[in-house]
Amino acid sequence: MRRLKKNGRPEIPRKTIYRLSIYLRCLARLRENGIGTVSSEALATAAGVKPTQLRKDLACFGTFGTRGLGYDVAELSAKISEELGTSRLQPVILVGVGHLGLALLSYRGFEKEGFEIVAAFDIEPRRKRDKQTKQPIQGMDALADFVGKQNIHMAILTVPAAVAQEAANRLVAAGVTGILNFAPIVLSVPEEVMVNNVNLAIELENLSYFTRQIDT
Amino acid sequence: MRRLKKNGRPEIPRKTIYRLSIYLRCLARLRENGIGTVSSEALATAAGVKPTQLRKDLACFGTFGTRGLGYDVAELSAKISEELGTSRLQPVILVGVGHLGLALLSYRGFEKEGFEIVAAFDIEPRRKRDKQTKQPIQGMDALADFVGKQNIHMAILTVPAAVAQEAANRLVAAGVTGILNFAPIVLSVPEEVMVNNVNLAIELENLSYFTRQIDT
Repeated sequence: MRRLKKNGRPEIPRKTIYRLSIYLRCLARLRENGIGTVSSEALATAAGVKPTQLRKDLACFGTFGTRGLGYDVAELSAKISEELGTSRLQPVILVGVGHLGLALLSYRGFEKEGFEIVAAFDIEPRRKRDKQTKQPIQGMDALADFVGKQNIHMAILTVPAAVAQEAANRLVAAGVTGILNFAPIVLSVPEEVMVNNVNLAIELENLSYFTRQIDT
Repeated sequence: MRRLKKNGRPEIPRKTIYRLSIYLRCLARLRENGIGTVSSEALATAAGVKPTQLRKDLACFGTFGTRGLGYDVAELSAKISEELGTSRLQPVILVGVGHLGLALLSYRGFEKEGFEIVAAFDIEPRRKRDKQTKQPIQGMDALADFVGKQNIHMAILTVPAAVAQEAANRLVAAGVTGILNFAPIVLSVPEEVMVNNVNLAIELENLSYFTRQIDT
């Protein structure tokens, strides 16, 4: 977990940002059910946090409910979405079109959440062309140009561990400042670049340890 | 992050277990390169942690390097793998064969890491049968029986949020004690059941906040 330096905006902890995402999903479900206002207690329960935590999190960016009335569901959704930068569809690129990369390219869940994988890059773009993907698959040479012209800030990295650092270097050099890394290595990046690591095998391994502990 | 109660074995923090997984991957790369011993400094650098952290983590389960010689790579790998419960291929089931579920069923990265998805379950098993998967896709009615007979402890949950709690209840009732949850909700489970949450949209949203912060 790396904290960014202050730069005018208050420094909100990463865990708070994660919880904002959870609140946003709870609010979406309330809207779907036609519910217009929600108390902090009800929203906290839906999100699985304590009401004091919820109020503290929302106070981080100056949002307060009206006493006795609670939060306006639509207004709070819009505010959180604006804060998270997902009020408009955000373009994301994917680097590394192996099994997992292909899977993510065909995953329809991102757009609903405000992200669109607009292009994919691979060292062997031609070999991948037989696979059905909505997005064009381009060679790594095209990456820097694409990122610059399309003003891309975020990338999903699904290359093998052995080439992940090199790929990350190219992303950073091109101007990407946020990397969702699926490669099981610790990436070295400049301080202003944010890396979130997702390693499904490590998550399973972690569960494995704890399920095993129960058996003992 | 939920801590399990002590039950005879020392209570190792979840973050330590995550780091053990990282060490294991660094050791695997050393073995591939024919390296037989490694100093704690070199291994720590490869894993992106401080040497003191590495030594502390390994001391948690009583492993110490030989002073001046460092760690035996093969021996330390075997010890960590045994500790994590991945020294043998572990069976895992998957529940919810949508886009993401299908993607994970066809993902070849798990077996290399010690996990095998042995079966998948869905409310509509017949509709999914046209998709190519190595694993059989069964109806939810078959779940409890399968988990019991095959002695399954771990499940990957890739169902929509609206039915995730119900599916989790069925898994827990069947005897599953570790759930890798991809549904964007907070699952309520008994204390002895471990849930690790993976939400790709939330990871992107989190990055989005921080990349946006840099732009400001």
